[in-house]
Amino acid sequence: MSSTYGENLRLTIFGQSHSPAIGVTVEGLPAGFPIDMAALQAFLDRRAPGRDKNSTSRREADAPEFLSGLTGSVTCGAPLTAIIRNTNTRSGDYDELQYKPRPGHADYTGYVKYGPSRDYAGGGHFSGRLTAPLCIAGGICLQLLAREGITVRARIRSIADVTDDAPFTESVAHKPFPAVSDEAGEAMQQRIAAAKESLDSVGGIVECIVDGAPAGLGDPMFDGMENRIASAIFGIPAVRGVEFGLGFEAAKLRGSQHNDPFRMEDGKVVTATNHCGGILGGITTGQPLIVRAAFKPTPSIGMEQDTVDLRTMENTTLTVRGRHDPCIVHRAVPCVEAAVAIAVYDALLQRKKEM
Amino acid sequence: MSSTYGENLRLTIFGQSHSPAIGVTVEGLPAGFPIDMAALQAFLDRRAPGRDKNSTSRREADAPEFLSGLTGSVTCGAPLTAIIRNTNTRSGDYDELQYKPRPGHADYTGYVKYGPSRDYAGGGHFSGRLTAPLCIAGGICLQLLAREGITVRARIRSIADVTDDAPFTESVAHKPFPAVSDEAGEAMQQRIAAAKESLDSVGGIVECIVDGAPAGLGDPMFDGMENRIASAIFGIPAVRGVEFGLGFEAAKLRGSQHNDPFRMEDGKVVTATNHCGGILGGITTGQPLIVRAAFKPTPSIGMEQDTVDLRTMENTTLTVRGRHDPCIVHRAVPCVEAAVAIAVYDALLQRKKEM
Amino acid sequence: MSSTYGENLRLTIFGQSHSPAIGVTVEGLPAGFPIDMAALQAFLDRRAPGRDKNSTSRREADAPEFLSGLTGSVTCGAPLTAIIRNTNTRSGDYDELQYKPRPGHADYTGYVKYGPSRDYAGGGHFSGRLTAPLCIAGGICLQLLAREGITVRARIRSIADVTDDAPFTESVAHKPFPAVSDEAGEAMQQRIAAAKESLDSVGGIVECIVDGAPAGLGDPMFDGMENRIASAIFGIPAVRGVEFGLGFEAAKLRGSQHNDPFRMEDGKVVTATNHCGGILGGITTGQPLIVRAAFKPTPSIGMEQDTVDLRTMENTTLTVRGRHDPCIVHRAVPCVEAAVAIAVYDALLQRKKEM
Amino acid sequence: MSSTYGENLRLTIFGQSHSPAIGVTVEGLPAGFPIDMAALQAFLDRRAPGRDKNSTSRREADAPEFLSGLTGSVTCGAPLTAIIRNTNTRSGDYDELQYKPRPGHADYTGYVKYGPSRDYAGGGHFSGRLTAPLCIAGGICLQLLAREGITVRARIRSIADVTDDAPFTESVAHKPFPAVSDEAGEAMQQRIAAAKESLDSVGGIVECIVDGAPAGLGDPMFDGMENRIASAIFGIPAVRGVEFGLGFEAAKLRGSQHNDPFRMEDGKVVTATNHCGGILGGITTGQPLIVRAAFKPTPSIGMEQDTVDLRTMENTTLTVRGRHDPCIVHRAVPCVEAAVAIAVYDALLQRKKEM
Repeated sequence: MSSTYGENLRLTIFGQSHSPAIGVTVEGLPAGFPIDMAALQAFLDRRAPGRDKNSTSRREADAPEFLSGLTGSVTCGAPLTAIIRNTNTRSGDYDELQYKPRPGHADYTGYVKYGPSRDYAGGGHFSGRLTAPLCIAGGICLQLLAREGITVRARIRSIADVTDDAPFTESVAHKPFPAVSDEAGEAMQQRIAAAKESLDSVGGIVECIVDGAPAGLGDPMFDGMENRIASAIFGIPAVRGVEFGLGFEAAKLRGSQHNDPFRMEDGKVVTATNHCGGILGGITTGQPLIVRAAFKPTPSIGMEQDTVDLRTMENTTLTVRGRHDPCIVHRAVPCVEAAVAIAVYDALLQRKKEM
Repeated sequence: MSSTYGENLRLTIFGQSHSPAIGVTVEGLPAGFPIDMAALQAFLDRRAPGRDKNSTSRREADAPEFLSGLTGSVTCGAPLTAIIRNTNTRSGDYDELQYKPRPGHADYTGYVKYGPSRDYAGGGHFSGRLTAPLCIAGGICLQLLAREGITVRARIRSIADVTDDAPFTESVAHKPFPAVSDEAGEAMQQRIAAAKESLDSVGGIVECIVDGAPAGLGDPMFDGMENRIASAIFGIPAVRGVEFGLGFEAAKLRGSQHNDPFRMEDGKVVTATNHCGGILGGITTGQPLIVRAAFKPTPSIGMEQDTVDLRTMENTTLTVRGRHDPCIVHRAVPCVEAAVAIAVYDALLQRKKEM
Repeated sequence: MSSTYGENLRLTIFGQSHSPAIGVTVEGLPAGFPIDMAALQAFLDRRAPGRDKNSTSRREADAPEFLSGLTGSVTCGAPLTAIIRNTNTRSGDYDELQYKPRPGHADYTGYVKYGPSRDYAGGGHFSGRLTAPLCIAGGICLQLLAREGITVRARIRSIADVTDDAPFTESVAHKPFPAVSDEAGEAMQQRIAAAKESLDSVGGIVECIVDGAPAGLGDPMFDGMENRIASAIFGIPAVRGVEFGLGFEAAKLRGSQHNDPFRMEDGKVVTATNHCGGILGGITTGQPLIVRAAFKPTPSIGMEQDTVDLRTMENTTLTVRGRHDPCIVHRAVPCVEAAVAIAVYDALLQRKKEM
Repeated sequence: MSSTYGENLRLTIFGQSHSPAIGVTVEGLPAGFPIDMAALQAFLDRRAPGRDKNSTSRREADAPEFLSGLTGSVTCGAPLTAIIRNTNTRSGDYDELQYKPRPGHADYTGYVKYGPSRDYAGGGHFSGRLTAPLCIAGGICLQLLAREGITVRARIRSIADVTDDAPFTESVAHKPFPAVSDEAGEAMQQRIAAAKESLDSVGGIVECIVDGAPAGLGDPMFDGMENRIASAIFGIPAVRGVEFGLGFEAAKLRGSQHNDPFRMEDGKVVTATNHCGGILGGITTGQPLIVRAAFKPTPSIGMEQDTVDLRTMENTTLTVRGRHDPCIVHRAVPCVEAAVAIAVYDALLQRKKEM
């Protein structure tokens, strides 16, 4: 079992939904970097539940406590560990789930893997709550990247059947519902509300763009930027696919349509188009990185579902109680930014060794 | 720079398109396993060029020479190294590419990363030829998995605008053009022929299914089966996206549509549907694994393209000479099988530690 | 910067001497293992300071708080994190050390590496206090190994010029001063007392024996048991050398003296002697593992020492204040057990993959 | 099974004594570095057998063939693979060893680990011959380090009871028998000759010094320079102990004797003495690194020895035939230089990430 990512910047995530705390240790941070704690908290708040009408009614204070790695708020070079205490837990909601696995959840696979000793409450280590420490690490990486002139921003690209095709020219981090087009955003929220009313849920797609990454990041084969970024993004629960540039659409095109011609612009080599999403041969071209992640609809839905009873090994039904998000895509937006920021910063450190 | 994959089974791929040899070292193979060399060669032949009318006219003898790791054809426990000599090289074809990067290729990013000392001939270490050693390692893993009752089979799912929706019930490894539907296969080959005639190329999608994998493989978060498999598949040049189960389609559904209900069948827990592609929480459910990879159209096309001259830093044009595949999707089918087999076998070894 | 050990069992240690907490995350523990918390605390108490007259007068409550990885006191398969709060800190003692590096300490090298932002208080991440989380992880491994019939026990082999040559047949874990011979132990304590009186310190050697390890653990070359164990033991501050079996003495012998003849005993292959310390070719023979670690005298001594002023870059002197151990060898005994237990358990997991 | 070392520079060694070839793949080399092939060959020749009267009479042409990673003799950034063909093999000499393990060798542990399929001929992957690819990688690192003003040189410190205490001021790489004092060297060679005449063998100690390493290399805890160097050196067969600075002698001293006072010298911080061997807290001080490795006497000796018959599981005797070194310490001198150079270069790359 491994909850570790990265070779140059290495983060280890720990905690279960209802354990005393969740947290993350980050190794490889440069010494002397002053973390902007207010900016970090603002970033974490974008992920936190209960922020708007579309999310669960739980309120969690996702305020990290830093146990190590800092003197004041400046990194000291030692491993940085931050934790978030789990306070608002209602474990009784989960008793039935001990032996009735929720469809679409890791309840059953966790049972197979870890046996009856697994921590089933709230999804345990599989809980989406574990994206909070991911966002702590990612939020710090975002600040480190900003210092190098690299920005990472994500948006909701689609929810259910609603797609937001508006060009992604500016960050939508300030919006409570981070779609680019307000009109599309409104339609998306209607889909979420409708699903909620039906005790159901919806999925969607998050798109992320990295600006300012220099050419030369990433490596051939297994350490390409695609491998690195996909490895980080698939660490977010509910992701079913990851694509770069034109992604699956590229499979329908001809080479003459897909190839990005090289051109000179202000004395620099650029590509006239960016169908490749800023990556060739696993290595950044200097153009914006473009990545999209598909999220399945939240598996915890209020309507009755078929499942099995692991005690009697017989068919049964389950009605999931408790408060659950009818959609997690908008909350996943900062998580994707975090995952991408971590992957890019790790690649940036890798690049330093080569210079 | 890293061309290494895996934690329990670890493979390191080396070689450039026109270096004396390409090859792979595999660590972590069990001792005492007899490799079926004829079956391995047959597997490698599926990837080799010049096999049918749709591929380049080059003929390469992809016959591996085993330098270590065997006594006879039985693994001895020591690292296994196999190489393939590069013989049929026509480096003169590549002289212009030293300073005129091909659009859609790693020529430019390799130049940025490694400078003028990079090996540009034939794409160097970025060449699709490096999938030959990947297939050596993968071919051995396929045999190891077969011993455990696990089979891995891939198909062409689409080429350009032609999709093969026939159910994938049996392996198509024996077919020269590995589509399930012969009719769809014929249409696909027409698209390839048309592209070739226009000095152009086409892309497509490969779908891979793993049968017989036990429940419990993979880990939460960054070592989930999705992360592991995506990391391996993105090691194949030209892959732009990877998805599992319903993949990007899942983003359009409601939870009640996407969730796979658990049911009892012959005393075992199964899922009534398999929209999740056999993976929940990063861990296998015991149902077939389903993964798809999107391949961009081959970037090496015969028509004139815009590019830059890295000596003069001025705009120019390039006509790529040499023999190039108008489509690599059918040749990529065994490569995807290899990548998936490696990832699954690595996860299987990981699982052994937990038992 | 990396404070991570192990490939199969992976532990990450974090914290500074005077940060809010120190701790450890352990990944790869089997699910369902009940930790004997009383036994773990007893093990930690052996390392804790202030236990006897030979140690610093500080009293630290090294009581771990478990943040994750458990349900009750049983492992659940998720990463286990335990922390120890830092309470008894007297940072004022360390102000001068910010710019006057202590001879023999990491103060200067930490300054070079991390710059003025380093956490110099109490040695920061370099502090011997970081062996407490090492002992948490090691103490759990000791219990896991015991379940497999493997025991790890260490002793003081020498302090200053006093060597304890008594045969090491039984554990001395129950002794406040863990020498085998009481007479030698008394002489050692006199050396410590004499050094303390002179505001000086003494070093010594710890010997560790592992009984019950099956033949076949470890790997050739860089993952041999020697490499694995040495990597772990050199993680303890103040270790200057590590040797196995006869160690440096072996260099003086002839092959006919050093070789351990194989013999049959009760139907099993054994070695008539055990000069190799239970390891051949990096792999365990089935005989007891024998390892020794040399500890330098504690660098923090009360007498005035020459050093430099990093502000003025001029020679100066330093008198280290605060309470410091005149000898850490007896407290290092459980630390060596912890390091060895972690290395052996990691190798045991590695071995499971091969079976 | 793992024959891989390093995180930033990563080398993988493969091959068995009598497999078609042995070799090494090195990842992470900078692109554009011209390898001095003549100097590399001269370095390899120092390790090769049959160089003088003290070694086996075998003559092996340890001329590496480079399969990848170069354009001409300049690194191109891709993984570098070099092999040495095994030609001079006399496998018949080893038939008896298939079931009669040699005392002091890995024959028995290899049998336990890999079973009857192991490659026993010539020691297989455990053979000292595998230090040839180690020296290829190390020889390249020595050249890379020289470019940074860092030199690595080793000497024989002792053979049997003869110690060479002459100060190690200059390299002895040019000497056929690399002792500093010719007189001590002569006495050592007499010990070797005497052992040979008795069909016996002798061990010894190699000392290695690294000059010019900047302060700041290495990390706290498990990635300290001691851990890194020890991990590499224990990769050389027959090493029984590794120590730094005063090593085991430090355990006998008081802090006031062992601590190295800091002093200003030409505007730089130095240590007045170097008892710590240039490492404090795992990090280089800027003073020379000092490391010693103890080698056991060669286990392959000509006289009859007790062993067991693994077929009948009965006691028996064995007389090892074939040509074997009565001492490998002088041949191990370049191997230690190689191991240390690899570890230091890996740490140097690590350091680049922090700047």
